[in-house]
Amino acid sequence: MRTVNVPLVDRSYPIRIRAGLLAEIGEQCARIQLGKRCAVISDSNVAKHYRKKTLDSLKGQGFDPLFISLPAGEKSKTLKNVQACYGQLAKHRLERSSFIVALGGGVVGDLGGLCAATYLRGIDFVQVPTTLLAQVDSSVGGKVGVNLPAGKNLVGAFYQPKMVLCDLDVLKSLPSREFCSGMAEVIKYGIIYDAQFFKRLERDLPSILRQDPKAMASLVARCCQIKAEVVGHDEKETGLRAILNFGHTIGHGLEAISKYGRYLHGEAISIGQMTAAKISHAVSGLPATQVTRMKALFSQAGLPTEVKLTTAQTRSLFAAMKLDKKVNNGEVQFVLANKIGQVTAGQKVPEKVIRKALLD
Amino acid sequence: MRTVNVPLVDRSYPIRIRAGLLAEIGEQCARIQLGKRCAVISDSNVAKHYRKKTLDSLKGQGFDPLFISLPAGEKSKTLKNVQACYGQLAKHRLERSSFIVALGGGVVGDLGGLCAATYLRGIDFVQVPTTLLAQVDSSVGGKVGVNLPAGKNLVGAFYQPKMVLCDLDVLKSLPSREFCSGMAEVIKYGIIYDAQFFKRLERDLPSILRQDPKAMASLVARCCQIKAEVVGHDEKETGLRAILNFGHTIGHGLEAISKYGRYLHGEAISIGQMTAAKISHAVSGLPATQVTRMKALFSQAGLPTEVKLTTAQTRSLFAAMKLDKKVNNGEVQFVLANKIGQVTAGQKVPEKVIRKALLD
Repeated sequence: MRTVNVPLVDRSYPIRIRAGLLAEIGEQCARIQLGKRCAVISDSNVAKHYRKKTLDSLKGQGFDPLFISLPAGEKSKTLKNVQACYGQLAKHRLERSSFIVALGGGVVGDLGGLCAATYLRGIDFVQVPTTLLAQVDSSVGGKVGVNLPAGKNLVGAFYQPKMVLCDLDVLKSLPSREFCSGMAEVIKYGIIYDAQFFKRLERDLPSILRQDPKAMASLVARCCQIKAEVVGHDEKETGLRAILNFGHTIGHGLEAISKYGRYLHGEAISIGQMTAAKISHAVSGLPATQVTRMKALFSQAGLPTEVKLTTAQTRSLFAAMKLDKKVNNGEVQFVLANKIGQVTAGQKVPEKVIRKALLD
Repeated sequence: MRTVNVPLVDRSYPIRIRAGLLAEIGEQCARIQLGKRCAVISDSNVAKHYRKKTLDSLKGQGFDPLFISLPAGEKSKTLKNVQACYGQLAKHRLERSSFIVALGGGVVGDLGGLCAATYLRGIDFVQVPTTLLAQVDSSVGGKVGVNLPAGKNLVGAFYQPKMVLCDLDVLKSLPSREFCSGMAEVIKYGIIYDAQFFKRLERDLPSILRQDPKAMASLVARCCQIKAEVVGHDEKETGLRAILNFGHTIGHGLEAISKYGRYLHGEAISIGQMTAAKISHAVSGLPATQVTRMKALFSQAGLPTEVKLTTAQTRSLFAAMKLDKKVNNGEVQFVLANKIGQVTAGQKVPEKVIRKALLD
């Protein structure tokens, strides 16, 4: 088993990575001495495959789990669903010593984490990410939250899990579009932090796409390690952590104007990263050859790299970006690349330059 | 001006206490360099008296405030109202650098604090408590939250304000029943922490009830100091802080079974404290003479000290107590007094003893 530690003093926790880990969730929870009563928050797709395995393992170790299943998809990430979960937690008599297991992708992790952060002013929780995107990104670092009609993740908290369990086997049941969506965050780590890793992706993409076990274990571990390093330096995004938002300013905007229905998160930030790359070429010296390599890698990973917007859609996109959490004094902020492996956050970009990159 | 510091390392903050402080809120916020845009969350009663004064002072210092008014009363402390506030915060374009002012009693402070704790994963906030209860208790210590149908404060967070401003003048516009309700928490500090302070209350009650300025300044400061000491030792209630719950196990239960409509919080915990005192006499050695002194002080402060419950109501009360956050492994926990000035938390009490104390 590979273990990556997220170093946050009294809130440090391990990310455990291995094939077949889900069947041992009971043992893993017992090992870190969690309370008896718990709730597994999941979604309808994940429940179909893993409900029984999860509950059996927990019950086998003497835990008393409640299972809560939400409709699958980003549209479930609402306060209304959080409220419904609270009702069930109270009904099942979860106490301060109880815990929540978030079993699913980013939506379930973010929503389950917010429930854990706020129910009884905070109870323990365990992340069991079942998508590539959640394993390499959203389950690590303690950002939890839900969307508002006005924008994505506008409500939430910083709240760290007690443990993250990444079972590599569950990725095999992922639809290929979902797997590719996760690759957008994987490639991002190469661009923002590790040029060697980017090269490795260029070389190993075929074995990754066919989910070669060794390639996958090393890929998930490296991504978690990068994220853990960044979060360990800046838990609450006052500085370094902002580099993780590369491609997200435009990506979140695209998700918002399409009402979270058209793009998977990875698809939106793939377009967002390519737009940020073009802006970076225009204003922060990213060489054209590297923009080309990035485009090739995203494309080979099955991801879209551009978007055709009408004038009205472009207007909506700019309005949506101004509502993003990353706005400061009314100005939209970008993370821009100087070269693959090195980016700078907090960059202001003239609207004209953004428009040109979007049309390019 | 009296200033009490709440010592919480990087989250330490001052409580400023003086008559007339509300008119200087703009200066006080400028002094600690809060962001330009803000939202004042308040209620219909408080807005009538203090909306203009607050907004004028903030605008006078260049702040750009939005005013949000909720219906007055405990029934407003819902997730639905939190959601309505989020919508307004997003519409007014509050950013990560913006802040919230909670101008009101405990309901407004708890709800406004929860909005601040979770909007954009946490923005700054300032507590301006306008009731005695909020000044001496709920505005200090960072407990924020709302009620669920299943129980009081079941959803929330620990989230510290940047500053608390206690304007003693605003207490003059409080209805007398509200003022007396606050006295229940004031008397509690004597019982749980400071026998000298309890004696001072017995002696000075007449001048306190007519709001003598010197008596009030010293009373609010002493209560805040005690709470700050307790919270400074145990921010997240893993130990010492639980003593603040004296009288609250039964108090919260009474509020829940009367649907938060019959008793003010202080009235419920006055009955709760007297019931806990009788239990303490039965099982933890609290002398009968001290039970009598407590009863006399609560009564002289205009507070109820007992309750007549039907069999059905008693059954509901026990059910409600089991839903309280303080339950551990299904067992209701009590804070019991050994003598005035000294209590012990985490006490299990046989149901028979609780019943007897309620009937007594």
